[in-house]
Amino acid sequence: MTLLDALFSPRRVALVGASDRVGSLGQVLAANLADFPGEVVPVRGGESLRDVTGPIDLAVVSVPAKAVPAVAADAAAAGVTAMVVLSGGFAETGPDGTALQDELVEASGAVRVVGPNCFGIQNCDLPLNASMATGLPDGGGGISLISQSGAYGMAIRTLAVDERTRFAKILAPGNTCDVTIAELLAELSADPATRTLCFLLESLSDGRAFVGTARRTGVTKPVIVAKTGRSAAGARAAASHTAALASSEKVWQGVFRQAGIVEVGSGQELLDVARALDGQPHPAGNRVAVITNSGGVGVELCDLLADEGLTVPALSPALQERIRAMLPAFASPVNPVDVTPVWSRFAELYPALTDLLARSGEVDVVVPVLLQRAAMDAATAEGLRATVATLRADGVEVPVAVCWVAPRDARPNADLLQESGVPCFDWPARTARALGHAHRWARTRERPLPATRPVVPVEAPPALDPEAGATFLARFGVTTARSVACADADEAVTAAGDAFPVVVKIASAAHRTELGGVRVGLSSATEVRDAASELLAHGPVLVQPQLTGVEVAVGALRDPVFGPVVMAGLGGVWIEVLADVGFALAPLDRADARELLTRLRGYALLTGARGAGSVDLDALADVIVGAGDALVAADGVSEIDLNPVLATPERAVAVDWKVA
Amino acid sequence: MTLLDALFSPRRVALVGASDRVGSLGQVLAANLADFPGEVVPVRGGESLRDVTGPIDLAVVSVPAKAVPAVAADAAAAGVTAMVVLSGGFAETGPDGTALQDELVEASGAVRVVGPNCFGIQNCDLPLNASMATGLPDGGGGISLISQSGAYGMAIRTLAVDERTRFAKILAPGNTCDVTIAELLAELSADPATRTLCFLLESLSDGRAFVGTARRTGVTKPVIVAKTGRSAAGARAAASHTAALASSEKVWQGVFRQAGIVEVGSGQELLDVARALDGQPHPAGNRVAVITNSGGVGVELCDLLADEGLTVPALSPALQERIRAMLPAFASPVNPVDVTPVWSRFAELYPALTDLLARSGEVDVVVPVLLQRAAMDAATAEGLRATVATLRADGVEVPVAVCWVAPRDARPNADLLQESGVPCFDWPARTARALGHAHRWARTRERPLPATRPVVPVEAPPALDPEAGATFLARFGVTTARSVACADADEAVTAAGDAFPVVVKIASAAHRTELGGVRVGLSSATEVRDAASELLAHGPVLVQPQLTGVEVAVGALRDPVFGPVVMAGLGGVWIEVLADVGFALAPLDRADARELLTRLRGYALLTGARGAGSVDLDALADVIVGAGDALVAADGVSEIDLNPVLATPERAVAVDWKVA
Repeated sequence: MTLLDALFSPRRVALVGASDRVGSLGQVLAANLADFPGEVVPVRGGESLRDVTGPIDLAVVSVPAKAVPAVAADAAAAGVTAMVVLSGGFAETGPDGTALQDELVEASGAVRVVGPNCFGIQNCDLPLNASMATGLPDGGGGISLISQSGAYGMAIRTLAVDERTRFAKILAPGNTCDVTIAELLAELSADPATRTLCFLLESLSDGRAFVGTARRTGVTKPVIVAKTGRSAAGARAAASHTAALASSEKVWQGVFRQAGIVEVGSGQELLDVARALDGQPHPAGNRVAVITNSGGVGVELCDLLADEGLTVPALSPALQERIRAMLPAFASPVNPVDVTPVWSRFAELYPALTDLLARSGEVDVVVPVLLQRAAMDAATAEGLRATVATLRADGVEVPVAVCWVAPRDARPNADLLQESGVPCFDWPARTARALGHAHRWARTRERPLPATRPVVPVEAPPALDPEAGATFLARFGVTTARSVACADADEAVTAAGDAFPVVVKIASAAHRTELGGVRVGLSSATEVRDAASELLAHGPVLVQPQLTGVEVAVGALRDPVFGPVVMAGLGGVWIEVLADVGFALAPLDRADARELLTRLRGYALLTGARGAGSVDLDALADVIVGAGDALVAADGVSEIDLNPVLATPERAVAVDWKVA
Repeated sequence: MTLLDALFSPRRVALVGASDRVGSLGQVLAANLADFPGEVVPVRGGESLRDVTGPIDLAVVSVPAKAVPAVAADAAAAGVTAMVVLSGGFAETGPDGTALQDELVEASGAVRVVGPNCFGIQNCDLPLNASMATGLPDGGGGISLISQSGAYGMAIRTLAVDERTRFAKILAPGNTCDVTIAELLAELSADPATRTLCFLLESLSDGRAFVGTARRTGVTKPVIVAKTGRSAAGARAAASHTAALASSEKVWQGVFRQAGIVEVGSGQELLDVARALDGQPHPAGNRVAVITNSGGVGVELCDLLADEGLTVPALSPALQERIRAMLPAFASPVNPVDVTPVWSRFAELYPALTDLLARSGEVDVVVPVLLQRAAMDAATAEGLRATVATLRADGVEVPVAVCWVAPRDARPNADLLQESGVPCFDWPARTARALGHAHRWARTRERPLPATRPVVPVEAPPALDPEAGATFLARFGVTTARSVACADADEAVTAAGDAFPVVVKIASAAHRTELGGVRVGLSSATEVRDAASELLAHGPVLVQPQLTGVEVAVGALRDPVFGPVVMAGLGGVWIEVLADVGFALAPLDRADARELLTRLRGYALLTGARGAGSVDLDALADVIVGAGDALVAADGVSEIDLNPVLATPERAVAVDWKVA
């Protein structure tokens, strides 16, 4: 039996800690398991899993923390496939709890463990409700949700029930002592019932595996992640209740984008994006048609769509002519199509315009804005439902999403639309944001997957040795500036020859900057001699030709969450004032490295913004690739720093480098 | 009678276009006016305002467009104080409608006209409902709303009713043929019932008056504006249904910030900020205490508050100790204060912790997060209500705002809180955004108002004449680089003397850049002669000493919406790649000019980010002030361009200048 099946589709479930005491967790769980179509075996106080006859696929455990390791040992002895431990009092409480959690892992042997300190597991289709939450959301949807915050995960589920969203599977993984979030992602990506994967994360113990699997999954199924704990206070709070290693926000962002993960800012946005994508056609481009009965909301929605990189293009004259013929006088057919407040004709106009626009070939998304009376009119909602059904039956794969601006008592019409597969979003801001993510995801998934490329292990060079470092980097295709190491001023003058201007710098990168150990623009033997004489007080110097180009900083380092990553950013003010840097997982290929560069705010400077030609982007990308490969290949290297790399239309050369 | 009273508190109202036909606008208006405590005089078809006995304060007009000018003439003849024209078919429909609107203005004489093409007027306290909308929101609140989008304004009102928000006055000004939005702002700022002013704008015909009044108003009452039509499609759509001049988004943003206006991105955000401020104490600083029953939501809220410039600081050890004594084991007293899911104690803990934190002196805002069971518990809501009432009675002026994450059926508890003056915001994103605006507004209003400063009119210099331009700028305190105009190469060599390096440039700024007409770093008489000889082919040249400093671009121009404005930005990549510029209304004072500089993303470069000392910010500010004064003083000048101004710790000098 697969882990997925044991957790979500068990045949026999044992409830360890079953109880008849009203309000006890054991009693709540028994009640929640009542609709499970398989067999539930209660294991009460004084009883043991060892005494249960026949195989148990899933043990649901709610006994006090101290008793859990013994239950795990019993489960192992009884050949249980998986257990989910809802009990708290483990690693989240401090050192004693961590020791108890270690005991649990030790005792569980071959049993796979979800939790401890978790909210439980739900399979909305079966149904299976092995969780603390009363009531399951409706099944039949493709959204599966993994939430590290149990309470928040359940709150989102409630919102989704309010907004008529159907789910497949829900799980709160708690302390992830055994079954990790990456493993759950892998299991769900192979689950036919799961079309859309949602994660509410505060941390990852297996970041590298997670993003690797996410990238492969994302080609067919969107992986949407709300990562919280970005701020100092947020990270402190997250650490206090999950106890995990922290990594910089920029690293998370970089590797998530590289993996094609849809990163959202809140749990509500997570569910909005899931509704925009699940079971819906994906936008083939960024052109949106807006149909509205309020000019003002139309204008606001245009603004917010533009913020998301979507456009609301003027329709062709021919299409405008057809629309004008349908509309009342003074209505606008341009886009937004403003039908004006013709209450009596909403039920006719909204469906007809949606149909016409979706089939026009001129837009990639249609957004009917239902404001006030248009929303209160059941016939308009029913007409839109029927129109979208017909479009789908006819194979028209243009998504239709409703922007809903109406009082609460009109809600049944939104429910009708949402239940029949037409997503409705409250107010323009949520509508635009969800559609923006849908568009970006559709573009990201069009990228080819990078080929797997073996990196052969090599020995690390001596730390901070410039010549050994240059030789090491060269093996990975990173060109460094031609340098001659000199121990006295005469050697420096000879090395400079007459190819002025040259640079003389302290050879060791260790304290070069602090000592002011770089002299540039030296244009005579005398200048070289003077500079070298001064700098030699700090040790040997390097003589280099003085190169020009756009300054780029490239690095590679071992991140506590994601392992080897590369960093790239433009030099000077871009890094110092704007912190304009990006990250990606290493090893990476040239396409990923080039995409990393495009994400920089100063990217235009590389492509020739200030009158210069574009630098050789492939050569620059190859420096990034090489830095990543070098770090991956040499276990003994903890950090590579190439700063600056000077990029021109012909080449990209590291002028300063540090391998440590 | 004041305009405010005539519009919102008339004693006698005439309804012109009164009708008994069911569904007609005249009949809807008559029904909506039924609760008006004053007298309503119906004027039906065939009747005239001239025949009404006794004074009419407000005429509500709903006759067809073509009949409106005659009604206006009748109103003028009858001595009506003000009229509101709901009828459409005027400037919003094209040239014929514009002509009809001009006729209306002409005919109305001394009558003040709101509209045409508007939704109407509401005074929730009186009550007066002279609008198309059925039903008034509850009165007794301090929020007044002016919405250029009639339908959207009404939709927001509905949302506010759903969210139990009380209003003072509401008006949709339509085409603003006479009574402008700035005038409405001025009237409402003087209205004792109005504490919080909200505007939904697509355009302004009187931008300068609006921001001027807003700045004075904002010292005591927040002015909150949602300005739509920012994007290309949004602006096109706005123009199609309001027909107004466009101005750049950056100009709007700059003058709004200078005026202390709270600028929001959507109508929903407008109402959220109004709820966060109206009738509430204002945050004295940026420190927020979060009380939560879900670690996950607490973390997300911390992140989103940090995005808004708010902090969630760790509480003092002493305060943590007091809180720890109240909490269950494993709960966190740090901040967020995580009470954990102790359902049975929510009603005790939330009020007690809110009271303790509000009185602690350690935070400026308290945010209880009510998630799921905490929200569903009526006793918790009731306890919080009572606690906040006690805090206010005791004079504790720390705002308390609830972050609400709960299913729909828990709504009555949110309604209870909101109705008793404890604002509730759905989900963390809306909570954080509203509190961020409240904090920023509270900081902005602490600024002193600028002194009114007369600018004496002067003659404009000949356009593009560098010497005359320098003399003109000097009158306004703008220093330009010492320049000698030369007509031949010998003169240039003499002018350079031996103070190298110098710059030689084409004297006329007209085509200087395109012709490559600037030669820098000339360090000998020979280099000066060669450069001058080449450039003299295009006309006279200027010889200047070569100055150094941080490059800043300063300008002044006449904006179509706001009139004279100044612009400032850092030079080089900051302008070319990042479009990092800001605007402010001219004339302005040194404090405003310095604040304009702080808004630049590259501001750190001026204060010494890259190892240099801070430039003379007062000197630089004075260049901006001077450019603004010069434009205001000289009607004949349409544009002043100082680029670059070179700023150092000692001075700020314009090296290139153009006055045209």
